Amino acid sequence: MYSIKKILIGTTIVGVICLAAIRKYLCNNKKKDLKAAIEDTNIAQLAKLVVKTPKGTRDHNPHQMSLRDPVFEKIKVIFKRFGAPCIDTPVFELKEILTGKYGEESKLIYNLEDQGGEKLSLRYDLTVPFARYLAMNKITNFKRYQISKVYRRDNPAMTRGRFREFYQCDFDIAGKYDTMIADSECVAIIGSILKALGLPDFTIKINHRLILDGIFDVCGVPVGKFRTVCSSVDKLDKSPWEEVRKEITEQKGIAEEVADKIGKYVKLNGGKELIDELLDNEELSRSSSGKQGLEEMKLLLQYCDFLNVSQNIVFDLSLARGLDYYTGVIYEAVLKATVVKNGKNVGIGSVAGGGRYDNLVGMFDPKGKPVPCVGVSIGVERIFAYLEANAATKPRTTETQVLVCSAQKNLLEPKMKIVTELREANINAEIFYKANRKIQSQLQYGEENQIPLAIVIGNSEIEKNVVTVQNIVTREKEKIPRERLIEEITEKLKKL
Amino acid sequence: MYSIKKILIGTTIVGVICLAAIRKYLCNNKKKDLKAAIEDTNIAQLAKLVVKTPKGTRDHNPHQMSLRDPVFEKIKVIFKRFGAPCIDTPVFELKEILTGKYGEESKLIYNLEDQGGEKLSLRYDLTVPFARYLAMNKITNFKRYQISKVYRRDNPAMTRGRFREFYQCDFDIAGKYDTMIADSECVAIIGSILKALGLPDFTIKINHRLILDGIFDVCGVPVGKFRTVCSSVDKLDKSPWEEVRKEITEQKGIAEEVADKIGKYVKLNGGKELIDELLDNEELSRSSSGKQGLEEMKLLLQYCDFLNVSQNIVFDLSLARGLDYYTGVIYEAVLKATVVKNGKNVGIGSVAGGGRYDNLVGMFDPKGKPVPCVGVSIGVERIFAYLEANAATKPRTTETQVLVCSAQKNLLEPKMKIVTELREANINAEIFYKANRKIQSQLQYGEENQIPLAIVIGNSEIEKNVVTVQNIVTREKEKIPRERLIEEITEKLKKL
Repeated sequence: MYSIKKILIGTTIVGVICLAAIRKYLCNNKKKDLKAAIEDTNIAQLAKLVVKTPKGTRDHNPHQMSLRDPVFEKIKVIFKRFGAPCIDTPVFELKEILTGKYGEESKLIYNLEDQGGEKLSLRYDLTVPFARYLAMNKITNFKRYQISKVYRRDNPAMTRGRFREFYQCDFDIAGKYDTMIADSECVAIIGSILKALGLPDFTIKINHRLILDGIFDVCGVPVGKFRTVCSSVDKLDKSPWEEVRKEITEQKGIAEEVADKIGKYVKLNGGKELIDELLDNEELSRSSSGKQGLEEMKLLLQYCDFLNVSQNIVFDLSLARGLDYYTGVIYEAVLKATVVKNGKNVGIGSVAGGGRYDNLVGMFDPKGKPVPCVGVSIGVERIFAYLEANAATKPRTTETQVLVCSAQKNLLEPKMKIVTELREANINAEIFYKANRKIQSQLQYGEENQIPLAIVIGNSEIEKNVVTVQNIVTREKEKIPRERLIEEITEKLKKL
Repeated sequence: MYSIKKILIGTTIVGVICLAAIRKYLCNNKKKDLKAAIEDTNIAQLAKLVVKTPKGTRDHNPHQMSLRDPVFEKIKVIFKRFGAPCIDTPVFELKEILTGKYGEESKLIYNLEDQGGEKLSLRYDLTVPFARYLAMNKITNFKRYQISKVYRRDNPAMTRGRFREFYQCDFDIAGKYDTMIADSECVAIIGSILKALGLPDFTIKINHRLILDGIFDVCGVPVGKFRTVCSSVDKLDKSPWEEVRKEITEQKGIAEEVADKIGKYVKLNGGKELIDELLDNEELSRSSSGKQGLEEMKLLLQYCDFLNVSQNIVFDLSLARGLDYYTGVIYEAVLKATVVKNGKNVGIGSVAGGGRYDNLVGMFDPKGKPVPCVGVSIGVERIFAYLEANAATKPRTTETQVLVCSAQKNLLEPKMKIVTELREANINAEIFYKANRKIQSQLQYGEENQIPLAIVIGNSEIEKNVVTVQNIVTREKEKIPRERLIEEITEKLKKL
């Protein structure tokens, strides 16, 4: 609440409004004191309140929601198709839980103010909370999905679906299983989801952290700099090699000839034949981790073939994925479609990504007991940005089936009784909240909201104990007995 | 990441673990430097990391989610039945947006740390963000539902469903309509939802801020203290009148005789006859706002009768609702059932509440343009606490229909192909992620997860180009041709 002092300062700017309010108050209400009156004055004006959502966030209106809801629903269906149950975790975690998990991305974490409690941060993804959940509950064998919002103090690019608050749809498999089986399930689920969403034209890029480590190793990168170089290579989807090379050499202190050797490798992509080629490569074969990565990659491609997703897959050595916690296979799906932005066609970017993270759960376990994990996250916001840009017609925002109208005044009671009867019979029904609205306005509301049926009552209907049912689109009318209301409406709705 | 200095300090405590890790490292990996090795050591041990969810929050495991999901779904169905579309707003708002809206509850708002951006707070409810949404988009006429989490740094009582992070399910109607029509819809929707959730034994207490104001006025409370006295009266559902009286007189400086006069009124409750009685009350009739409140209350009870919800309603003068923004009718639903806590039966408390708030949207409008609003919020967490305590059987956590198993080794390829075929035919199917698990273990997993069907393949099945379908419950087996797999399984699933 605003003190008298603050208000006096504000008065120089908004004096006129303020005085008007006080005058109005003095006329209307003699019982209140002056302070209460000033508080009643529009606070927004006094404080010059900016009414907006925080930077990088947005509201979703009913039209957006009616586009988003079915997408979430379809993703849920596929997660269930692969046998996953659902869990939910809090929006914030103890700050320590997130510390040291994201490498160079840690600066983007939102912290909560210390208000005399625990130090908390908003979750940055759903993977670290999942790992915390496993460790906390001593679960070593688990599969789940979670659809929730995550938070990053990133530079927003809202038209391209990059926000500070956004949804992730995650599917993860924890447990010690046979090599690459769970990993290939994660790749297959990406394929199933993108197809289910009607986005069949996509590529899933696959790489392996051990292959990257092997490359860094044989090229001469010091072990301590593997992660930071990885985080630079990760930028190759947005920046050309020249820029990434500059970052590696100038910012990260890697020798130019080392960078050039890395460059030769990370430009490669292909299929099984590339794996065989690299396995024969004398230089790379000096690295045991590189070799292990290539063997696993070969197995993964084979399983993806069995799971009918291999036609969308490319083994791409430029894929690095910035987050620190990945230890094995990594992947990322990119739509081939583009969106027009400032008159230019630009790529939509990654719409799904993930990989293997075998050490994350162990970080939360007092005995460091490892629980190998692999998972995938669907980046729905970018998919929405694409779908919104390409939506042909506006979908309905409500599911109302019947609008109960009156053709004359003073019929609120029968309207309320009819709407209640319909709702109790599981029919979605509405009345106007103005008792005596003109019938034309009522039907127009029905038309605008694509409500299929109207029930119209007037004094003559009441007298004869009937109601008029009107098809709002065709305008066809029919009188039905009041006591057969539910049966008749149910029948008509079935036929629509 | 931990600096060498910090680690040295930690070493006195966890020296043994640390040294063991360094020794292990020196044996295993000669390429890494010491710092990297120490970082690789279990960070959890070094920092004594507490692995838990923040105070007052919790995870929901698959069993809880399989109980919660259908509840949200049913509430959504009813919201749609009353014609509402859905919107979504961010988890945090500009701090200023929430300032001055909650009265004495403001101390419970979570603020975000200032990290060089805007001052932000986690939303305390969904009502203020809804009002902000209306003002920001200049909407004067709107109905919507929203199901989202809200945040309060309150004293948690988790077994009774009081958390710091919890879901609210809100339905609100904005617009200038005829008196009490929209208000009665909100009361009716509470009734419909509680019935749909199988909780028919409830009471909806109703009161009116203008009636309370009238009482405070005629009892002699100064206008400036209406809100703070209201906030004390709000505690009557948890505390006896004597305690509330003490708070009013001692903490809020109201004269004892004034408090006693208030006491006489707020103990009253009843129906239409009580309204008539109070309308005849000479003292109260001196207050014009009291009179207006009573007239509106009379109309509301009449509409609730038409909407078939009046049998659950009590006009209760002790109901105050603490939040500052209410201006008219207020209501709260209480289940009659109790839960056992420390051997005692305790009430579940309010499971829904809301009211009219005609001035909130205007606070966000530069011209102070009012948009009258009325709404209701379903307190699902308390409903879950009740349902969880009373759940008879554990529901399934997955929707898997078919488990694809193998009776011999080395059959991963056909299993992967079958599971893919099933999924592509929209059948929820799983395989084990260990290729050569014993058939008994596989079927046991199916039993534990209540999966109805298993497909079992072995070398003989492969040879004969058939699969064995097994009902996991009855153990009945049947061989079907491999090429008729989808048709046969689809048929069998239909009959289950």
